[in-house]
Amino acid sequence: MSGKIYVIGIGPGDTKMMTQEAADALRSSDVIIGYKVYTDLIRDICKGKDIIESGMREETDRCERCISLAREGKTVALVCSGDAGVYGMASPMLEIASRSGFSDVEVICGVTAALSGSAMLGAPVGHDFCVISLSDLLTPWDLIEKRLKLAAEADLCIVLYNPASRTRSGHLKKACEVMLTKLPPNLPCGYTKNIARSGSTAQICTLKELCSIDADMTTTVFIGNSATIIRGGWLITPRGYKTK
Amino acid sequence: MSGKIYVIGIGPGDTKMMTQEAADALRSSDVIIGYKVYTDLIRDICKGKDIIESGMREETDRCERCISLAREGKTVALVCSGDAGVYGMASPMLEIASRSGFSDVEVICGVTAALSGSAMLGAPVGHDFCVISLSDLLTPWDLIEKRLKLAAEADLCIVLYNPASRTRSGHLKKACEVMLTKLPPNLPCGYTKNIARSGSTAQICTLKELCSIDADMTTTVFIGNSATIIRGGWLITPRGYKTK
Repeated sequence: MSGKIYVIGIGPGDTKMMTQEAADALRSSDVIIGYKVYTDLIRDICKGKDIIESGMREETDRCERCISLAREGKTVALVCSGDAGVYGMASPMLEIASRSGFSDVEVICGVTAALSGSAMLGAPVGHDFCVISLSDLLTPWDLIEKRLKLAAEADLCIVLYNPASRTRSGHLKKACEVMLTKLPPNLPCGYTKNIARSGSTAQICTLKELCSIDADMTTTVFIGNSATIIRGGWLITPRGYKTK
Repeated sequence: MSGKIYVIGIGPGDTKMMTQEAADALRSSDVIIGYKVYTDLIRDICKGKDIIESGMREETDRCERCISLAREGKTVALVCSGDAGVYGMASPMLEIASRSGFSDVEVICGVTAALSGSAMLGAPVGHDFCVISLSDLLTPWDLIEKRLKLAAEADLCIVLYNPASRTRSGHLKKACEVMLTKLPPNLPCGYTKNIARSGSTAQICTLKELCSIDADMTTTVFIGNSATIIRGGWLITPRGYKTK
């Protein structure tokens, strides 16, 4: 009998910020597969289970491994930080599964950093917003720049994922310079680091100041829109415009 | 002694899709305040607590009530469906709290429909995306149209919230017609209804077909981008472009 595959978004880090559904799916799985940083975060829930840790860029192998384990009858949990969909493993897993004729895959959503980071800062994503990754590993930088400009023109709050990595620095500065051609330097912005993990921080600043922050892999950046305000130490985007 | 206010995103509906943190905050609260449809969803967790149900458009009153209860020493939970931030109560609550000089407010994030609906359809929000509400109660329709056009030009996946209500019909059709000026009629799209509640459904269709679906208050709409594909019954946006 064939097993099944769960693609699970475990949320930002602390298991308290995981959904009950995700925790239940982990508990019902025989094998847990994921990048080591993520499997470490859920070690308590996964006690006694087979844990297969994989490196950062072995996504296709990881998905194929899930399928072969499921075909042996195992229930397999493929874990992602944040949500399973947003820059997560759901899309490669579903694509590879459909190519292999394997259909018993269930995607279990989780809280992505746009939401958990927003809660730390106040409510920057209180109204229309977009999420854009600054990683140009798989997306041409020109397209990223185009999206940033159009999002700024659309007056959307912009949440930036992957502003920096060990091999990419300077991307956030470049992105801010692009946005400064469309948006005012004193626009209310903010950023978070290590959401729901030790050393977590949230900081409010201006768009100009964002250019020179020390971003790393754990940083999530929030660019306000024209309605965003700073009140009582919170970054707030009101839900409507007519009230302003 | 003054109490505190939690603004809690309870997720899409089923309490299994709530985070542990949200459930803990509800359990530690003395009073639960929210729109009746939402407080009904969490009645089991809130047994024995004071529940104050309020109508749809009494947001300011609800926030002021929270503050006066907290000033009496109560721990108050203000509940929102989905996330606390995204079109939720976090922004009015923080704004009113800061105006009143009340600072002990904590925002507890939750899974928003862009994530839970995406998981039902596959992985439409696998890469850069935006969330736009079609409600023109507080946002001028011209601005909504402008955002839709620019988001389509930016080749972002677009998630539409509030495509219809009892008093607003035809907004989704108008929005689709705007997007059809920029996007192909056969673009892979999808929609969900009643996520994580009884009668939940997920349907894949084209942008052209979206024009004439029967949307209601529980509908969340997903517009793919140029990379979005349909495979094995799933709607998938790949994580990168170079692999295509």
